[in-house]
Amino acid sequence: MSIRLGELVDRFGGQLIGSPDLCVTGIAPLSDAGSDQLSFLSNSKLRGQVALSKAAALIVCAQDHTGLADSYSGAFVLVDNPYVQFARVAQYFASLHAIPPETGIHPGASVSPYAHVDPTASIGSHATIEAEAVIGAHTVIGAGCFIGRGASVDAHSLIHPNVTIYDYCSIGLRAIVHSGAVIGADGFGFANERGNWIKIPQTGRVLIGNDVEIGANTSIDRGALADTVIEDGVKLDNQIQIGHNCHIGAHTAMAGCVGVAGSARIGKHCTFGGAAMVLGHLNIVDNVHISSGSLVTRSILEPGQYTGFYPLAKNADWEKTASIVRNLSSMREKIRQLEKIIKTLTEKSS
Amino acid sequence: MSIRLGELVDRFGGQLIGSPDLCVTGIAPLSDAGSDQLSFLSNSKLRGQVALSKAAALIVCAQDHTGLADSYSGAFVLVDNPYVQFARVAQYFASLHAIPPETGIHPGASVSPYAHVDPTASIGSHATIEAEAVIGAHTVIGAGCFIGRGASVDAHSLIHPNVTIYDYCSIGLRAIVHSGAVIGADGFGFANERGNWIKIPQTGRVLIGNDVEIGANTSIDRGALADTVIEDGVKLDNQIQIGHNCHIGAHTAMAGCVGVAGSARIGKHCTFGGAAMVLGHLNIVDNVHISSGSLVTRSILEPGQYTGFYPLAKNADWEKTASIVRNLSSMREKIRQLEKIIKTLTEKSS
Amino acid sequence: MSIRLGELVDRFGGQLIGSPDLCVTGIAPLSDAGSDQLSFLSNSKLRGQVALSKAAALIVCAQDHTGLADSYSGAFVLVDNPYVQFARVAQYFASLHAIPPETGIHPGASVSPYAHVDPTASIGSHATIEAEAVIGAHTVIGAGCFIGRGASVDAHSLIHPNVTIYDYCSIGLRAIVHSGAVIGADGFGFANERGNWIKIPQTGRVLIGNDVEIGANTSIDRGALADTVIEDGVKLDNQIQIGHNCHIGAHTAMAGCVGVAGSARIGKHCTFGGAAMVLGHLNIVDNVHISSGSLVTRSILEPGQYTGFYPLAKNADWEKTASIVRNLSSMREKIRQLEKIIKTLTEKSS
Repeated sequence: MSIRLGELVDRFGGQLIGSPDLCVTGIAPLSDAGSDQLSFLSNSKLRGQVALSKAAALIVCAQDHTGLADSYSGAFVLVDNPYVQFARVAQYFASLHAIPPETGIHPGASVSPYAHVDPTASIGSHATIEAEAVIGAHTVIGAGCFIGRGASVDAHSLIHPNVTIYDYCSIGLRAIVHSGAVIGADGFGFANERGNWIKIPQTGRVLIGNDVEIGANTSIDRGALADTVIEDGVKLDNQIQIGHNCHIGAHTAMAGCVGVAGSARIGKHCTFGGAAMVLGHLNIVDNVHISSGSLVTRSILEPGQYTGFYPLAKNADWEKTASIVRNLSSMREKIRQLEKIIKTLTEKSS
Repeated sequence: MSIRLGELVDRFGGQLIGSPDLCVTGIAPLSDAGSDQLSFLSNSKLRGQVALSKAAALIVCAQDHTGLADSYSGAFVLVDNPYVQFARVAQYFASLHAIPPETGIHPGASVSPYAHVDPTASIGSHATIEAEAVIGAHTVIGAGCFIGRGASVDAHSLIHPNVTIYDYCSIGLRAIVHSGAVIGADGFGFANERGNWIKIPQTGRVLIGNDVEIGANTSIDRGALADTVIEDGVKLDNQIQIGHNCHIGAHTAMAGCVGVAGSARIGKHCTFGGAAMVLGHLNIVDNVHISSGSLVTRSILEPGQYTGFYPLAKNADWEKTASIVRNLSSMREKIRQLEKIIKTLTEKSS
Repeated sequence: MSIRLGELVDRFGGQLIGSPDLCVTGIAPLSDAGSDQLSFLSNSKLRGQVALSKAAALIVCAQDHTGLADSYSGAFVLVDNPYVQFARVAQYFASLHAIPPETGIHPGASVSPYAHVDPTASIGSHATIEAEAVIGAHTVIGAGCFIGRGASVDAHSLIHPNVTIYDYCSIGLRAIVHSGAVIGADGFGFANERGNWIKIPQTGRVLIGNDVEIGANTSIDRGALADTVIEDGVKLDNQIQIGHNCHIGAHTAMAGCVGVAGSARIGKHCTFGGAAMVLGHLNIVDNVHISSGSLVTRSILEPGQYTGFYPLAKNADWEKTASIVRNLSSMREKIRQLEKIIKTLTEKSS
């Protein structure tokens, strides 16, 4: 299974410098690509590796192409964004090898007679689909999944095995949800009565837009009274926690282990590094970028990059520094005293 | 489905100021409640919203009621703790809409002939109940759950789909356990023999009291030799990790992503903010409150609020501050030198 | 079920001081051991407890034995590493009580006719084994597990219920994988095209060596193009996230809630305390130890202990300190000004 560079450019765009009849069988990083493969240069700093690459052809931007023509004898595909082109071409090659799931309901699945399953959908073994649930065209529900009453997964979605979607939650088109994800569990809401926690019923839903990907063992809680909303194009990595009534704007991406407490409102096109944490009831505007390991303790009303973690050090150095941090206020006091003495000295000496 | 205010006060307490024959169909926040709904004022700061609310009636405390009678024409229900009353009333309305699970064992479940399942319990499709497991009256075991050998779930509990309860662990009355939770996996215990880790068998159990709620994808490990104990009324949010041999006191609540290392002993009525972490073998007394994102590195023997996280900042500011933190000991040294010089100067000038 | 001390020493090594015919029925900590049980002293600091222990015999190192002979009248087993001996003996006692799983395929499992399941393996109810998957001799696949197409689990492994192993991933000999673990979900890889995230297909695998243990609800992502590799003897606790293309060296151990971002390369014999986080594309050499709660933000090229967390304090103290940390650069500026003034003063006075 290979593709002619001419066809590749027709499908995915770009200007070809080289023979359109050259065939490539896959795409790989510069250092790994074989002589029948395509490669790509997405970071100008790696230009030095191009001369050593065996790849038959190279996806580059016009800027990087100048200066490479001498050191590299393969074909070039000039595009605006080589990394995006790589993603598209890699998707194409992956699709050639994909084994389509079997259409229909596995005999070992439990599907309510009151569920609506599109005949082109695929329901895996030991999956459970409850009454009034709706499964869209060409959608795959993996083995062992639970789709609750009245829940829906729209067309062309891929729900990997052992995912749980609670009652009345909905997922849009072309979703990918990884194993162990739990959509729609109760939010964490209690009233305290003389030390006892009284449960506040969580009657909202989780509403997930189109083109959303949700990682393994990620949890998104249903709303308390209103709904939890994940807009189009959001990408959530593994082990993420999204509290009840959160609203996450379109195309925001969160890396692994991020936690977002309840009722946080996060804008569009934000990014969250791994293990970043967001407290509840905060407002974060569009285009905010939170560094890994940071705890967001207040609303962020201006776009930009925000950070808050303690610098790593050799343990011995850390111990020294941490003990100073603990006593910073006495250090500040000492500075104030020095200031006073100096003021006195200066007055005397003048 | 509606309720007369007279009946509502009879059921849940409170002093009614208004017509007992007024009917309400649900409860909603001040800003969302319709003219056939009840609302509540749990935070005095929101008193300004009352005048604008369409709600037919309002749950308030006596203190807030004074001064509202002029601006609000609906009925009042006076109670000590409006938020608790809201929780109770919301539970009532939620129960009106709840669809009771089907009693009995789903034909697609696998139940050992040596398991004891109460005839009023409900066992979902693809659930597995092993020998000697005990499932109490009116308890619901969701689809795809695994209840190990000799494990027990007491009466009136709700175990959502795809929960795993290992052998010999026990859960009390009225529990709620959310999907993906794992109760009773092996604790993390190894002896190191010349670089190799030798497993220490984990033969204790997890013992969970009454009225406990456990969130989605939360893990509670079994004890090594003794048991891991979760007392009555504990509420654990999602994505929490409780290590082996921990003991968590009654009515303690932990928000999402909290981690507690092995053998920690935590008191009653404590609260842990999201992503707080507790090291192993620590002792935390009753009524301790840990702020979100804090790492508890030592025992806490006095009640109170404890905090330990690095303040968030714009990335540029953080870089500056972090570089100073890294060099705090040289800053302290500089202060010491200044002190010496000043001492000399002072002596000279006197 | 008991064992003679003579047989115990024959099986597990050590020098017996006492009667070889003395029988013990189990092993327990010093304070809990009954008079028919064995105990162990793995920490010299606990020597004071020995005199009070009822244990029939004690595993100690030679060093600690000196000085205990007077205060303790039971037998001694002298070994190099009492904690390792405890682990081995505890494993032995645990094995006496273990109930062997039923060999063969549960009638409620779904096993592809194209899967290769060893006749000595045990496949639980509602498990799914896809085509070309390979399950080794004496391996147990728990209820509700999903083993993807072409995936393999080698001999003598124990996969607890509700584990998901994606297509083409492989697990070595004697693995233990706990419930909720997800092996081989897609790594988090996207190219950004004018604000939209374009998925980079994740076509690598997860390759796991021998003697690896993986905790509950832990996720290990498959590689993007190359593979994610976990070497022999690695021990991962619960709720851990391992990103795509990571490489974790042999016998490295990670406590609960650790996160490792993509393409990190971690050496052998490292340890990571709970909730430690490692950023992507970093290199950590062998024998590095990361303290709990630390964020590793740069490569670590020297063995040793590294730490980076903010010290916990009473909330009032923390607020004071945090506000100083936020303004550390103005504090540094103040010191600089003091230095200047002092310089002037010194010049004047000399």
